[in-house]
Amino acid sequence: MTVYYLIIYGVVLVSAAIIVYLMRYIFKQSKGTPEMQSISNAIKEGASAFLKRQYKAIALIAVLALVIICIASYFGKTKLGWSSADSLSFAIHTGIAFITGAFCSALSGYIGMFMSVNSNIRSADGAKHGLNRALQIAFKGGAVTGLCVTTLSLLGVTTLFVIYGGGFNGTNIQNAPSLIVGFGFGASLVALFAQLGGGIYTKAADVGADLVGKVEAGIPEDDPRNPAVVADLVGDNVGDCAGRGADLFESTAAENIGAMIIGVGLFPIFGVAGILFPLVARALGILASIIGIFTVKVKNENEDPMNALNKGFFITAAIMAVVFLFNVKFMLSGTNGGASVHWVALYGCALIGIVLSLVFVFVTNYYTSYSKRPVLEMAKSCKTGPATNIITGVAMGMESVALPVLFICLAIFGSYELGTVALSGVTGISDPGIFGTAIATMGMLSTCAYVLAMDTFGPITDNAGGIIEMSGAPEEVRNTTDKLDACGNTTKALTKGYAVGSAALATFLLFSAYLDQVRSILHMAPGASFPVDIGNPKVFIAAMIGAGVVFLFSSTAIRAVGKAAEYVIIEVRRQFKEIPGIMKGTAKPEYGKCVDIVTRGALKQMIIPGLIVVLVPILVGVLLGKEAAAGYLMVVTITGVVMALFLNNSGGAWDNTKKYMELGNYGGKGSEAHKAGVVGDTVGDPFKDTAGPSLHVLIKLTSTIMLVFIVLFLH
Amino acid sequence: MTVYYLIIYGVVLVSAAIIVYLMRYIFKQSKGTPEMQSISNAIKEGASAFLKRQYKAIALIAVLALVIICIASYFGKTKLGWSSADSLSFAIHTGIAFITGAFCSALSGYIGMFMSVNSNIRSADGAKHGLNRALQIAFKGGAVTGLCVTTLSLLGVTTLFVIYGGGFNGTNIQNAPSLIVGFGFGASLVALFAQLGGGIYTKAADVGADLVGKVEAGIPEDDPRNPAVVADLVGDNVGDCAGRGADLFESTAAENIGAMIIGVGLFPIFGVAGILFPLVARALGILASIIGIFTVKVKNENEDPMNALNKGFFITAAIMAVVFLFNVKFMLSGTNGGASVHWVALYGCALIGIVLSLVFVFVTNYYTSYSKRPVLEMAKSCKTGPATNIITGVAMGMESVALPVLFICLAIFGSYELGTVALSGVTGISDPGIFGTAIATMGMLSTCAYVLAMDTFGPITDNAGGIIEMSGAPEEVRNTTDKLDACGNTTKALTKGYAVGSAALATFLLFSAYLDQVRSILHMAPGASFPVDIGNPKVFIAAMIGAGVVFLFSSTAIRAVGKAAEYVIIEVRRQFKEIPGIMKGTAKPEYGKCVDIVTRGALKQMIIPGLIVVLVPILVGVLLGKEAAAGYLMVVTITGVVMALFLNNSGGAWDNTKKYMELGNYGGKGSEAHKAGVVGDTVGDPFKDTAGPSLHVLIKLTSTIMLVFIVLFLH
Repeated sequence: MTVYYLIIYGVVLVSAAIIVYLMRYIFKQSKGTPEMQSISNAIKEGASAFLKRQYKAIALIAVLALVIICIASYFGKTKLGWSSADSLSFAIHTGIAFITGAFCSALSGYIGMFMSVNSNIRSADGAKHGLNRALQIAFKGGAVTGLCVTTLSLLGVTTLFVIYGGGFNGTNIQNAPSLIVGFGFGASLVALFAQLGGGIYTKAADVGADLVGKVEAGIPEDDPRNPAVVADLVGDNVGDCAGRGADLFESTAAENIGAMIIGVGLFPIFGVAGILFPLVARALGILASIIGIFTVKVKNENEDPMNALNKGFFITAAIMAVVFLFNVKFMLSGTNGGASVHWVALYGCALIGIVLSLVFVFVTNYYTSYSKRPVLEMAKSCKTGPATNIITGVAMGMESVALPVLFICLAIFGSYELGTVALSGVTGISDPGIFGTAIATMGMLSTCAYVLAMDTFGPITDNAGGIIEMSGAPEEVRNTTDKLDACGNTTKALTKGYAVGSAALATFLLFSAYLDQVRSILHMAPGASFPVDIGNPKVFIAAMIGAGVVFLFSSTAIRAVGKAAEYVIIEVRRQFKEIPGIMKGTAKPEYGKCVDIVTRGALKQMIIPGLIVVLVPILVGVLLGKEAAAGYLMVVTITGVVMALFLNNSGGAWDNTKKYMELGNYGGKGSEAHKAGVVGDTVGDPFKDTAGPSLHVLIKLTSTIMLVFIVLFLH
Repeated sequence: MTVYYLIIYGVVLVSAAIIVYLMRYIFKQSKGTPEMQSISNAIKEGASAFLKRQYKAIALIAVLALVIICIASYFGKTKLGWSSADSLSFAIHTGIAFITGAFCSALSGYIGMFMSVNSNIRSADGAKHGLNRALQIAFKGGAVTGLCVTTLSLLGVTTLFVIYGGGFNGTNIQNAPSLIVGFGFGASLVALFAQLGGGIYTKAADVGADLVGKVEAGIPEDDPRNPAVVADLVGDNVGDCAGRGADLFESTAAENIGAMIIGVGLFPIFGVAGILFPLVARALGILASIIGIFTVKVKNENEDPMNALNKGFFITAAIMAVVFLFNVKFMLSGTNGGASVHWVALYGCALIGIVLSLVFVFVTNYYTSYSKRPVLEMAKSCKTGPATNIITGVAMGMESVALPVLFICLAIFGSYELGTVALSGVTGISDPGIFGTAIATMGMLSTCAYVLAMDTFGPITDNAGGIIEMSGAPEEVRNTTDKLDACGNTTKALTKGYAVGSAALATFLLFSAYLDQVRSILHMAPGASFPVDIGNPKVFIAAMIGAGVVFLFSSTAIRAVGKAAEYVIIEVRRQFKEIPGIMKGTAKPEYGKCVDIVTRGALKQMIIPGLIVVLVPILVGVLLGKEAAAGYLMVVTITGVVMALFLNNSGGAWDNTKKYMELGNYGGKGSEAHKAGVVGDTVGDPFKDTAGPSLHVLIKLTSTIMLVFIVLFLH
């Protein structure tokens, strides 16, 4: 057992060293001209100001949640017949885990933002020295975020597990995983508001800036005369970086904890190895990602940087395909009741997870790339105006749900069956198949650090492009940053596919963890049929409410963007009117005012969708009971995944449809077809950058809420 | 028992007499000028040609389905250990029921179309004699359809039940309801293709005519120079009339059969009365609707015809609220095991259903009327262009899901609890609550005949307006038809709300009927826990596939419109180019060619979505088993209802947003805001008239498919 902890903490140290190395590399790069720095500083200030205010609001919410959790845990447990002291201890453990999770999640978001605002200007300056330099800086900036977030998650979950009695000579190993679900909830809660607030901010600024700038005033994107341009650039950092950082932190945390809970069921065979397997697999994944990260480079100016990024991803995945062989063999072999575990079948589960991550990237690419049928058809439909573009895009987005759903189902089914095969005849466990799906989830998430690096790379290059544009750098430098920006758009779309895919695969895992917890709390035999009968009207009603909540949440998230954008539009119009020199370039617009206005708007608008997600599941559980809560959870996760796929893919496809026109097709920029494309792009923005990513969080937050508040539902 | 049959067949006779009376009234009205007749004849020919071809295609599909059903039923039963002769008899019974259901459903569609094309011209001519005359003709035309469809459904189900052994001295009463599920399946299958094909036709013609006519050539709507104008008018008849007729026929059939299956469980207490209750309630509902229909009239030219229609609806509902008191008291009183049934609680269930129908009409009105917040906000968002209109509309549509879901849940919960109260202590039944929800469904559907009359009224007035427009009638006549047309648009939106509401309420009923059937076939004690455990990965997978299918189906339905519309656009452009006199009004466009092209396009495009709906559930059941089939059914119905609400309401709201602008707001017709409104309206068309209504059918078709093919899933 000691060896597992050695591996985990060893990897944490290695990763920390690499992070320091990468940060030193980035910070020693030049920050370019004073002009560039002044823009970059404005972005930095705006992003920090937003995060500061947002974290204040989130802290308030978190403290409120902490009180509720502690009280609910205490009374829930005493009602179950626990002694007062035991209940209190449980409540305190859960509360501490919650606060730790919330803090680490917020920290992850901050790191994402911090690295992004410090890498963008250096990458912009690096572009003057060629494509590879700019790529290295941008990608290594992303890599710092990727490694920080995954390492922090690993460190937090492992350490809490050790402290809560799972450690070396732990006496509480089988109970410890349930004590740390609070960590997952804290992480999810912060991630929800970080992603929501950031997502609303980024799109409100974007939509607002475009509508008054491009459409009304007729000035190009990222033009320094636009008062909202800095707010727009800030948005990339707080939405894509801070939001996504918190999002993926909670993903890795929630899924690890879910897998550990499932692992408890295998304690009779594997002992603590079954519970620690997810953590060791994550640690090895971080190592593989580090190797992958260092392979990324372009050899000459004409090479497509996307190839380099893809190569790194494939290398990471390939390494993990080999590493899992040993990981599974050494940790998951065992014998019980005369039969031994077929560990090769369990290895097959890990492979399924890795393959699924590749499949999701390919499918997402198919539906959003402008060299494939969907976007080409949408571009064609732009010829008959915006209405047909919207109709085709909605239809494509809905269609794009089918293949991912099919592959998720195959993966769940395949890994479940392999899990059953692996453990057939081995006595002492009840539902071995679920462990197979847990391993598949670990397989899919093993490349997470690398994927997050790719993801954060996107907004860094976007910002670098913006800084170059605003500071009036020469044509060839612009070409370099444009190339990287295009590449960053692709990675953002692909990593969104990966995020929703892993969320989808995790749904069944988290759902099973919930059922497991109910059994364990009620002292049912593990695997005893916990009858969530869908013929029970309460289950049916809860399921229906779940579907309704996914739609209502998406609605409020999308509308929040429109409302916050309106503030921007009014402010920009005011500045154009009251500061006459702006359009001539003789007066500087008040960038800060716009940043401030979007900040306040976004934070105000994130409250309602956030409350819906948190309160409805608790209400459903309290009013309708634990079976209904399971029905709610099932349909929220399923509908949430499907809706997120629809929103992400249609939004991504509209984005590239517009880009396809800008490459000169169907009359190119400024043509009627392009105008239709712009409408689609604008519609897709809140879909793919606000509602869609927030749904990823919603799915996992609902699971962790159910796990934490389970004690209130047992009637 | 005899008295029940007397009531049912008595009502059938009365209804038939009223139908004859109304038809005579309509056919003795003047058909107006020869010019009007020539337009009307063109519509008539087009509609007949479409229906003829469509029915040929559907007949082929139905015959294929018949063979499969008979074979599946036979082998399914022998596998269950039935004797060969018994299995054969079962297969034949099911097959006959299927064909009867399919035929009646097709007939309902034909009646809807026939009445519509014969009433429209007479209503148009009636407009010359004032508002009331036009209203009477249009509404009475709709009433014929409403009465025909509901009476045919009642007659078909009752007669099959009698023939299959449920009759006077029937020996097979408890098995007969399961034998007639084939009737429901036949009805649903035809309805699906009728609604899909008709829905694609109507919107392809509409979108095509608008895009080339209004946008490209700059001629107004319904302008006789537009070669697609007749196709557009035909569309209203084949989509809204024929399609909706078949749809509501299968609704009433499927829900009656579902309720009868539930009623079998109450046989120990109520005897055959429990099974016949839905039929008697339907019969009394037809009587109440007849009374309601005859109250509709306007007193002067300035009265809003909507008030008259609403009054009729309220009168029908109020009558039923009283009638149910007696209906429930006399049929559903009884004693068993010393305790008697609290029939008042069951009466409460019926009231819940009636109230729910009113609530749905109000909520739909709130989200689609241009005097309420949602449409007003959308209209405001048009000021910033089409993109913001689409974003706001999508968000509103998603929001509009929440209240209906809440009320459905309350209705299911309330009626279930009341059902339990009513039958508590009465021994001999297991799950009495479900009978409560069945009664609530009967309450909601009791006003069905009247609602269908209102619904068919819509396209008749639409056509009347078109005929008046094309024949160049005087201004004041146009005003009259415009007023009726606006009123028809509202009724179409409201009845769609009613249709989806009753489908939603019925989902739980049909779902419970499926579980009941499984128990009965497997000879489980009634109400024994049939463990559809959602922790079973097969159930989870099937549920996920269900959600995917709803999205995929919506996608194919929406895209079908775009594809079929393209054919129209190409043809209209060709005519404008090759027949130069059209625009000057000197040459007549070739209307027939357009009709022909849309017909072929729509029929071709309905195949893929149709196959998805039919094949996927069978595959899921065969591959994954009966529990998985239940999970699929649950999520398809839930997601289907929610998606249909979203599509119907967003589409309806966009329609009225445009109309709000045309009333002179935000610059009125031709302004930029109006152009943005037109984009929204075009996007909403396939949502509300193709995909949305087809989803109503999908929900119920999935239930009947599961019921019919259940024998293949029992492994």
